[in-house]
Amino acid sequence: MAASFSSENMSPPPLLTDFYQLTMCYGYWKAGNHDQPACFELFFRKNPFHGEFTIFGGLDDCLEFVQRFKYSETDIEFLRSVFPPSTEEKFFEYLSSLNCDSLKIYAIKEGTVVFPKVPLIAVEGPLALCQLLETTFLNLINFSSLVATNAARFRLAAGKNAELLEFGLRRAQGPNGGLTASKYCYMGGFDATSNLLAGKLYNIPVKGTQAHSFICSFSSAADMKKRELQSKKNGEMVNFFELCKDKLKVVVDSSNWGVSLQEISEGELAAFCAYAIAFPDTFLALIDTYDVLRSGVINFIAVSLVLHDLGYRSLGCRIDSGDLSYLSKEIRVRFKQIAAMSSDLEWFALTKIIASNDINEETIMSLNDQQHEINSFGVGTHLVTCQKQPALGCVYKLVAVSGQPKIKLSQEVVKITIPGRKKCYRLYSQNGRCLLDLLTLDDEKPPGINNPILCRHPFEESKRAYANPGRVESLHDLVWSDGKIVCERPTLHEMKERVTQTLNELRGDHKRYLNPTPYKVSVTEKLYHFLHEFWLQNAPIGQLD
Amino acid sequence: MAASFSSENMSPPPLLTDFYQLTMCYGYWKAGNHDQPACFELFFRKNPFHGEFTIFGGLDDCLEFVQRFKYSETDIEFLRSVFPPSTEEKFFEYLSSLNCDSLKIYAIKEGTVVFPKVPLIAVEGPLALCQLLETTFLNLINFSSLVATNAARFRLAAGKNAELLEFGLRRAQGPNGGLTASKYCYMGGFDATSNLLAGKLYNIPVKGTQAHSFICSFSSAADMKKRELQSKKNGEMVNFFELCKDKLKVVVDSSNWGVSLQEISEGELAAFCAYAIAFPDTFLALIDTYDVLRSGVINFIAVSLVLHDLGYRSLGCRIDSGDLSYLSKEIRVRFKQIAAMSSDLEWFALTKIIASNDINEETIMSLNDQQHEINSFGVGTHLVTCQKQPALGCVYKLVAVSGQPKIKLSQEVVKITIPGRKKCYRLYSQNGRCLLDLLTLDDEKPPGINNPILCRHPFEESKRAYANPGRVESLHDLVWSDGKIVCERPTLHEMKERVTQTLNELRGDHKRYLNPTPYKVSVTEKLYHFLHEFWLQNAPIGQLD
Repeated sequence: MAASFSSENMSPPPLLTDFYQLTMCYGYWKAGNHDQPACFELFFRKNPFHGEFTIFGGLDDCLEFVQRFKYSETDIEFLRSVFPPSTEEKFFEYLSSLNCDSLKIYAIKEGTVVFPKVPLIAVEGPLALCQLLETTFLNLINFSSLVATNAARFRLAAGKNAELLEFGLRRAQGPNGGLTASKYCYMGGFDATSNLLAGKLYNIPVKGTQAHSFICSFSSAADMKKRELQSKKNGEMVNFFELCKDKLKVVVDSSNWGVSLQEISEGELAAFCAYAIAFPDTFLALIDTYDVLRSGVINFIAVSLVLHDLGYRSLGCRIDSGDLSYLSKEIRVRFKQIAAMSSDLEWFALTKIIASNDINEETIMSLNDQQHEINSFGVGTHLVTCQKQPALGCVYKLVAVSGQPKIKLSQEVVKITIPGRKKCYRLYSQNGRCLLDLLTLDDEKPPGINNPILCRHPFEESKRAYANPGRVESLHDLVWSDGKIVCERPTLHEMKERVTQTLNELRGDHKRYLNPTPYKVSVTEKLYHFLHEFWLQNAPIGQLD
Repeated sequence: MAASFSSENMSPPPLLTDFYQLTMCYGYWKAGNHDQPACFELFFRKNPFHGEFTIFGGLDDCLEFVQRFKYSETDIEFLRSVFPPSTEEKFFEYLSSLNCDSLKIYAIKEGTVVFPKVPLIAVEGPLALCQLLETTFLNLINFSSLVATNAARFRLAAGKNAELLEFGLRRAQGPNGGLTASKYCYMGGFDATSNLLAGKLYNIPVKGTQAHSFICSFSSAADMKKRELQSKKNGEMVNFFELCKDKLKVVVDSSNWGVSLQEISEGELAAFCAYAIAFPDTFLALIDTYDVLRSGVINFIAVSLVLHDLGYRSLGCRIDSGDLSYLSKEIRVRFKQIAAMSSDLEWFALTKIIASNDINEETIMSLNDQQHEINSFGVGTHLVTCQKQPALGCVYKLVAVSGQPKIKLSQEVVKITIPGRKKCYRLYSQNGRCLLDLLTLDDEKPPGINNPILCRHPFEESKRAYANPGRVESLHDLVWSDGKIVCERPTLHEMKERVTQTLNELRGDHKRYLNPTPYKVSVTEKLYHFLHEFWLQNAPIGQLD
């Protein structure tokens, strides 16, 4: 039962695909060309979120899928029930015997910043088998890359020092929509998740505070059956709640916050005390159930001061409503006042303020403008659902069969594919920044270091530039061959580092929020001419009536 | 491996939750009030997609989850690693022993049309245990209900007679994001899915056509190694491709479509022939790879006519680009011309036209305005990602502890909860239409038939109306008690019927696209007074400085 959600067996079965992949497979098989050598490339046409970069995620999941690719007996039985009765029995035998041993797969390293038109994955092998991978690959890459990109954008908006927490499980597309989101948000730049299962399966740090229901469940001191806490200083058991109540009076009397004791919720104080007794060294409180400034923050300060007296230390507080910038600044003022009271309370000024409540990229940037005092953002809905653009449009296109290039034509130039198997390079400037990505014909010489090369826009004739690379990186590694994963399999943490590293290599203007500069994806002179000649050969000539 | 995706074990483990549910649980446990009897209600505050109704989905998944709820040894081990070292060992023993035998769960029937503020599910039981269900319940209900509602809206837009096909797997949030979408789109009003695994697991009809890569993989007749098809009429093997080529010439010569034979792609014809040989009785073709009107539809007609000559019948064609309304009408004109050629070809006029390509609710309505000739819509991205609103904001709120009502206060009236356990009724007019939903105190007498009752808006004092119900339905059934599911578990098909039935009972103005009338969710006079008195008792009185 719970076994179904172990990291071992999360890989989808080959039946997780569109029906037409199987009907086309039968079409190929009946025509006798299912085993023709083919090449498909997986790429996207447009960066998401009005941005100019994308983070590549989901490759390892694809390799896992390829490794386990095998129709089960019940799969075949099901297929038999949905195919016409006339379907040849031998076709089902063929399907039963299929595995991915005959494929070669090339790919960009997972976690790399990537751009439109550059193949993320190239699959070589028998036509029908390559075709069968399409939907599952797209399913595994599209959302992983989209949500990792979204996370990276939140990180860029929040800056290096802010803590980013993913809280999206309740708004994700079901259980493993939530798991995928947690995993790839971490890769893209988040520090932790609230999702325990993701923590268990992927070794991601988990974080959490408390909910309003916890606070609401305590109406008064009477709801606290146990009130004792052991002092860390002298081991003595103390009535923690009473101490907090006394401290509250001291805080109210000695502060200038204009709040009277009656305004402060006793239920809230009881809830905070109960939580502090459970987590005296990592106390966190949700302070907006009643009124942040007239109740929550004062209760929090009182409890934190008593914890301090007993040798413990609070972590921080969370606000989940209201004007987050204003509240965070007001809270910080109060924390600083406490810190100023005595030298051993100086740490109080740095007590963490966590903010949540429908936070998106723009909220964070607006909060930055207002010079907020928030240390940590909890982000849910906008992060995991990618509200601004809930799907990345990766496609998986046939580029060659039996060595013959193939092109997908379209009235829209952006939808035309670049035919034939290609090689892909990233060219870096002399100072180590990414200059552009360059696609070449399969048999062209790789671009050389300090060797100026003409790079052309694939479709716009006049857009050309010489690049003089200080470094050249071949983007595609062989990752699957002879039925085995043949690349190193990076850990999630290594992928996360790759996101940071490759984003650092990208110029700031490609990453900015407003009107970012498009990153150049170019073709060589040879590929340019090949593409355009092939296009003309294949496009029908219209007839004006 | 594939076993992980069987219908048996798709239920998430209890660790699929937010960390704070467990930390709060420890807080309750330490305070000694984890076993206080509590009641939580799950509801949403706003209908999605600017609409005025929602379809309730995901209940059965929740019950499955509750039935299997049990922390495994490795779960406990993991929790031990993320809790502070000071955590009491007895707490982990408590967690290990937890199951849902002590809960009672009440719920509205899955597939029912539902409205804001009405509890979809009410959970009664020990405070900490009820709390632990929150995130998983929300995860299971939010997306299922959202996507079912989206599907229902597509159905309303498309009308009863259009066929609706879900094609969203490649854009969904990972493997079971895709499965959930397929399942609940079917429930909400779709006829079939392209997702084979969903077909296998949930017994949903599967449908599919072919992709551009299939068409592109054939450059000419040379790519067809096998060209024969057996006539259904006389069992003779014929060279199908040659017959189609000849027929094409006849069609071009005898039509007035202004197309010359050279304009028509031979590769496309070969691809259609290959597919027709595989599926002679269910032939479907994707006709927009080259040019719909100057190539695709003519090749399709030629192949269909040869199939007809051999005793088979084509199903239809798909267009995936361009002006779908214009193209569908032009295609229909050609089909009608063929139908008019002889009496045994009359069926040709009704040949199915399937349209896809970024279709959303508005596209369908605009196509309706243009009097399109499409029979079937294939919908992917906008359906499964719910682009217009990718998350439903269900919440799960504490409404009572130890018999004491609880209220969640907020500066925003819409976020205030209605305290206490309630009963929920749907009142129908004398002619069987839904009048309103009515919440009452737990111990109030149910509303009676033909017995006028004052129904009040819960927050707006002056909004009141007498209702005189012709029928009263109690909305909540007991669904879980004594460790067992105690309700009938409807099949997916029964839930789908319930969607249709309950939507039919709803007045048209609540369902229309533009400015729909809000459906009334009311409270009794008694509940109104209780709510407002309790609110005033609990809300702090501000102080003006």
